[in-house]
Amino acid sequence: MVYSIQQIADAIGAEAFGNTDLIVERVTEPAMAGANDLALLTNPKFAGGLAQGSARAAMLWPGADWQELGLEAAIESPRGRYGLSGLSALMDPGQHFGAGIHASAVIDPTAEIGENVAIGPLVVIGARAKIGANSIIGPQCSVGADATLGANAYLREMVSIGARATIGARFIAQPGVRVASDGFSFVTPEKSGVEAARETLGDQGDVKSQEWTRIHSLGSVTIGDDVELGANTCIDCGTIRDTRIGNGVKMDNLVHIAHNVVIGDNTILAGQCGIAGSTVIGKNVVMGGQCGVTDNTTVGDNVIAGGATKMMSKVPAGRVVLGSPAVKMETHLEMYKGLRRLPRLIADVAKLQKTISKPDTKD
Amino acid sequence: MVYSIQQIADAIGAEAFGNTDLIVERVTEPAMAGANDLALLTNPKFAGGLAQGSARAAMLWPGADWQELGLEAAIESPRGRYGLSGLSALMDPGQHFGAGIHASAVIDPTAEIGENVAIGPLVVIGARAKIGANSIIGPQCSVGADATLGANAYLREMVSIGARATIGARFIAQPGVRVASDGFSFVTPEKSGVEAARETLGDQGDVKSQEWTRIHSLGSVTIGDDVELGANTCIDCGTIRDTRIGNGVKMDNLVHIAHNVVIGDNTILAGQCGIAGSTVIGKNVVMGGQCGVTDNTTVGDNVIAGGATKMMSKVPAGRVVLGSPAVKMETHLEMYKGLRRLPRLIADVAKLQKTISKPDTKD
Amino acid sequence: MVYSIQQIADAIGAEAFGNTDLIVERVTEPAMAGANDLALLTNPKFAGGLAQGSARAAMLWPGADWQELGLEAAIESPRGRYGLSGLSALMDPGQHFGAGIHASAVIDPTAEIGENVAIGPLVVIGARAKIGANSIIGPQCSVGADATLGANAYLREMVSIGARATIGARFIAQPGVRVASDGFSFVTPEKSGVEAARETLGDQGDVKSQEWTRIHSLGSVTIGDDVELGANTCIDCGTIRDTRIGNGVKMDNLVHIAHNVVIGDNTILAGQCGIAGSTVIGKNVVMGGQCGVTDNTTVGDNVIAGGATKMMSKVPAGRVVLGSPAVKMETHLEMYKGLRRLPRLIADVAKLQKTISKPDTKD
Repeated sequence: MVYSIQQIADAIGAEAFGNTDLIVERVTEPAMAGANDLALLTNPKFAGGLAQGSARAAMLWPGADWQELGLEAAIESPRGRYGLSGLSALMDPGQHFGAGIHASAVIDPTAEIGENVAIGPLVVIGARAKIGANSIIGPQCSVGADATLGANAYLREMVSIGARATIGARFIAQPGVRVASDGFSFVTPEKSGVEAARETLGDQGDVKSQEWTRIHSLGSVTIGDDVELGANTCIDCGTIRDTRIGNGVKMDNLVHIAHNVVIGDNTILAGQCGIAGSTVIGKNVVMGGQCGVTDNTTVGDNVIAGGATKMMSKVPAGRVVLGSPAVKMETHLEMYKGLRRLPRLIADVAKLQKTISKPDTKD
Repeated sequence: MVYSIQQIADAIGAEAFGNTDLIVERVTEPAMAGANDLALLTNPKFAGGLAQGSARAAMLWPGADWQELGLEAAIESPRGRYGLSGLSALMDPGQHFGAGIHASAVIDPTAEIGENVAIGPLVVIGARAKIGANSIIGPQCSVGADATLGANAYLREMVSIGARATIGARFIAQPGVRVASDGFSFVTPEKSGVEAARETLGDQGDVKSQEWTRIHSLGSVTIGDDVELGANTCIDCGTIRDTRIGNGVKMDNLVHIAHNVVIGDNTILAGQCGIAGSTVIGKNVVMGGQCGVTDNTTVGDNVIAGGATKMMSKVPAGRVVLGSPAVKMETHLEMYKGLRRLPRLIADVAKLQKTISKPDTKD
Repeated sequence: MVYSIQQIADAIGAEAFGNTDLIVERVTEPAMAGANDLALLTNPKFAGGLAQGSARAAMLWPGADWQELGLEAAIESPRGRYGLSGLSALMDPGQHFGAGIHASAVIDPTAEIGENVAIGPLVVIGARAKIGANSIIGPQCSVGADATLGANAYLREMVSIGARATIGARFIAQPGVRVASDGFSFVTPEKSGVEAARETLGDQGDVKSQEWTRIHSLGSVTIGDDVELGANTCIDCGTIRDTRIGNGVKMDNLVHIAHNVVIGDNTILAGQCGIAGSTVIGKNVVMGGQCGVTDNTTVGDNVIAGGATKMMSKVPAGRVVLGSPAVKMETHLEMYKGLRRLPRLIADVAKLQKTISKPDTKD
């Protein structure tokens, strides 16, 4: 697809300048731009790159002087990265999965396939599954029995959705997503060492080896509208009720969501985060990569957790946390500063001890 | 499937009270229970929920007064969660994968398929692979050449088992499990910076860039009976001998088991744990989520590691550990308490220094 | 395949001794070796194992006395593990994926398949994809539209390569690898709490819940020659330009590489490492398992990071780092030693305070 500068500006709600009929084919970095590319230049510090490329048009930061930059045409976005969202949606070349239902797909006759749905090669769709209108099911996906996908779902290749999962509109799943795997829940016939250690903070008492008995998942997974899940991310079924993911939740790659977890609307989990069983995460929470939250706790609305933060207990709403175990960001910085000073502090104390003991030895 | 209260009680070895002929269809939380549901109420603090729902029957904590709770029938389980294991197994609606061998499965003619095995659509089974009786192989799975699965295996969708893996009875694999991926083992022609840094604790000496040469995996993976692996969990092949997983081992989602690792019976690894190459984990070990164990070390029997514990060296049997690097739980708590007091300690020492130096300045 | 001792020695460039016509079938540990096995014994401390097995031939450490060890034949490798790389390549029994193109594969007619390529059952190859000569595409893999795989690629089962990915020669992908999943990049219409917290180091200001708008990935992934990716490892597309993986890079299982990341030649990432968006990793870097690197930073050439190191800011070239946040290995050891002494230090300071305050109370 090619677009004129004016068409792009109109589509993303930005202003166009200069020769707005100029046609562009791709979006590139300024230094790599050819004559038919739109250079993306939303930060003035990269303006030097324009000279290395051949861009005639660019998307620029607010207030940029496109003529001084030697351009024929320009688009100005008041909030650069936000403008990029519209621009990238427009210019996304996509996966070319193709329309219609591929002959090699294995679709149960009782499945309900909505209007205008594309189903790729070697897909499996189970009994009574429902696929909403305009959805795209990529190659080699699996949708389990009685699962429901809302309208406009977009599944990349090899996504699997287990039985009875209920998913809202505009769901996006990257390759290898697992929705509705069985929860990880085991119990011993008698009290286990873990239970004893939790009660006593460290003493597991008379350890007795026991076998683990499985608790099956009777619940499934319920996912709201506008959710996106990253590659190879896994969401387990609930034990009695469904594990629940709110509207607008976005998860990155390799995230682990255990049984019974509840995640509030518009929460973001970066790569490799893990939420243990029965924990409740609020709305609008943001976790950096490799965060972890223990089981049976709560993380309040609007919490922000830096990368690799391990939340071992309840986090109040609105808090910005860091560290393992997680503490307020300012507490973490103070503790860490102290830790860096610790070797000097030990030397200082040794010196004090010497100073004080000296008068005694003089006596 | 529907069951009477008496049937359920008999099946899980619990006691039934009241109208034990009452039929229930599902297990739910008390507040969400309809008239044909069995409310799960094993903790008295949630008893208030019964009033919000319409349950006529419940599974209750030991000694609960079912009549006072307004129920028509009840089951009492002496150890609530243990009772739930039997109840959930009975009521599990399953994935509806269907019986028989699907016409679209690609099965090598030399494979040996046991009696009463179900093989889903688009499965691939390699040469000389053996599938034990009564096994269920979910859609789009792959079982490699010369691999052996014991009786009653249950593979969810898109599980892959590499060549020559040997797996015991009653194996359960969640979607996307990878058994017998190649081990990650590389070597440089001359001593590498890593080897030098390990020897000198930090000095990698004269760094020389080198290419890495692959060590192929000649071993495979041997897994005992009653093992369950979580979604997208990966177990690598051994180098010379097999990587070995004991009986009754349970792993959660996204766990990483490197080449040559040995894991003892009934050990449990929660989500996103990682065990590095050639490490030996004992029996009955329990690791919380996101734990890590370094390579070529041992973790003794009955060790319990809290979430995100990083075991950088040998852990003796029976120890309860926490932190990064892992220390005894009580040591960790003491160290952490100290760390929290550190800013105040620094102030205290500064004050002491002032107090002591003052007499000098007065001189 | 069986080989004579002489053939093996010749193939791996080592010296053979004794009855070099002796034929061996497998490589095993000394204690488990049968009469037709080659025992691997590159460390003298395991020599005792020979007596437990029946090996007649072994690969030995430099300078070993094969006759004293009671062997009929031996191979000596000057650098044991390096010799093992050649030996293991020779003796690797492989996956038996079979030659030719399986009838069940779904290959777009515009795809270009090189000479002598093997394509397994139920594979999907998209429009205009190019598969280099002598490549092996395992069962149930997916290669997207316009993707390019160099010569001698080896894809295990269920690997997915997204549209427009460009991959060099001799690529190895373990089961479940995801190349060119969409980048995880979202933006809010107005400044978000995260942006405010980053600017103020902890204060997210007036929190306003906002929905997240997607930034699509216009770039794909470019991978050099001789790269290997572990099971279920994921590499996201770049936003404007490709995410770039250099030559000779090796990644273990469950690694996460975010959008726009650049990784230099011959870098090694162990299991479950994660590199956040737009970060640049140098050449010849080695990271232990479960390391993390924050977004938009750099890790210099030849950096070595111990297991579970979290790099929160720039790491200079050549540094050996540990800890969370990462510091120089010697600094980490000193800080940690201090931390272990902290409880005693607190007691010492309390004692000092008492000693000093006593004279005052006496006044």
